[in-house]
Amino acid sequence: MLILGIDPGTAIMGYGLIEKKGSRLLAVDYGCWRTPAHTPMTERLLMLYNDIAACIKNHQPNFVAVEELFFNRNTTTAISVGQARGVILLAAAQAGIPVSEYTPLQVKQSVTGYGRADKQQIQQMVKALLGLPEIPKPDDTADALAIAICHAHSVNLLNRMGGSL
Amino acid sequence: MLILGIDPGTAIMGYGLIEKKGSRLLAVDYGCWRTPAHTPMTERLLMLYNDIAACIKNHQPNFVAVEELFFNRNTTTAISVGQARGVILLAAAQAGIPVSEYTPLQVKQSVTGYGRADKQQIQQMVKALLGLPEIPKPDDTADALAIAICHAHSVNLLNRMGGSL
Repeated sequence: MLILGIDPGTAIMGYGLIEKKGSRLLAVDYGCWRTPAHTPMTERLLMLYNDIAACIKNHQPNFVAVEELFFNRNTTTAISVGQARGVILLAAAQAGIPVSEYTPLQVKQSVTGYGRADKQQIQQMVKALLGLPEIPKPDDTADALAIAICHAHSVNLLNRMGGSL
Repeated sequence: MLILGIDPGTAIMGYGLIEKKGSRLLAVDYGCWRTPAHTPMTERLLMLYNDIAACIKNHQPNFVAVEELFFNRNTTTAISVGQARGVILLAAAQAGIPVSEYTPLQVKQSVTGYGRADKQQIQQMVKALLGLPEIPKPDDTADALAIAICHAHSVNLLNRMGGSL
């Protein structure tokens, strides 16, 4: 089972593709897509959409997992991230791939077993669970892998409960 | 010059296509695209994207105009509207059509000449400026036409100033 985790953003968008083989998790591909500074939003979204669509086409993931974001203050950021999420969800829908969303708390708990884990602890666990030589950089990439791991763990849990996604 | 105004939303998205012939404005097509209740967000975005892309393909507008939104409170709504805006901006970028954004204040001032105009006054002016038999319904459609009119007026202003969009 191939899972594509994406950390939405318009300047930088992290992605992490992991394969779940039984209880093992393998990192297949990960990194981030960047858009040049001072690029109009329409062009950024087009570039990111093309990157996502190409990644989906190349790897044919079974699931896409995205962080469900809550903003308490900055609604300008919320609209910007919403726009990035819009093109992610569209690309997944066009390819017929189901999308699951997880809150930051769910990701933390799932990856570290501890809801108050800090960024460093999450990144160490991402490295350990995927058997990587070092912590993936930048943070957006590590975050995307964490979201994909969270989805893999949710599938495990659902399987044990006899449910389905 | 053909201008497509769009009022973003995921349950209902208003659109208004107007033609600017010299100083005259003509309504070419207007209405709204709806997505069924209880439809997952991914499917809503896919439906809306298909509607927008088809409209752009059929009418080949020269400009797309969208309201620039500010939310003071509800960031959940901001993310949802942001996602809708994401697929609008993407569809325009894919077709190579420039997108202009206007604040609600700019739209009010442009359509009525008065920044404190209420919704009813704006809708009456939309009806009058486009020579429509009645106020377009629902509000989302009237709002989309108002945004398109705002863009037409901005083009006038820029032309008089010797500028370009």
